[in-house]
Amino acid sequence: MISMKEQKVKELFGAHLRKLRLSKELSQEELALLAGLDRTYIGGVERGERNVSLINICRIAEALSISPDLLLSDLKELN
Amino acid sequence: MISMKEQKVKELFGAHLRKLRLSKELSQEELALLAGLDRTYIGGVERGERNVSLINICRIAEALSISPDLLLSDLKELN
Repeated sequence: MISMKEQKVKELFGAHLRKLRLSKELSQEELALLAGLDRTYIGGVERGERNVSLINICRIAEALSISPDLLLSDLKELN
Repeated sequence: MISMKEQKVKELFGAHLRKLRLSKELSQEELALLAGLDRTYIGGVERGERNVSLINICRIAEALSISPDLLLSDLKELN
């Protein structure tokens, strides 16, 4: 997997997270609080700057009341 | 999310990966080679010892010719 594609993975994940967060009418700060993460971390994820870990994917999914695999559903197009 | 649950997340992910890898009749070494990762890393992931990152989830999914969200499909029960 080339590096440009890795950047695209992070950006797609972040854009999808932002969409899901807004659909739940949550601010970055509210989501961060629910997930036990920092608001600046959530911001970084949404901007495609972070290579989020499995545990944090699950924490964010739990905070959004969705199943973890839904957070990755936009990445299908890459494979 | 309590720490015991975080361990469970890693174990469920690892067990699911092992199942998917074996269904493709790949050894850990073959999967590692296809994904550009180390065999010992794949072993650690399957034993639930690693908090795998988004990029590596995508590399592993690509190596298995599946979509990344399928690797997380066994984690639904936790939320």
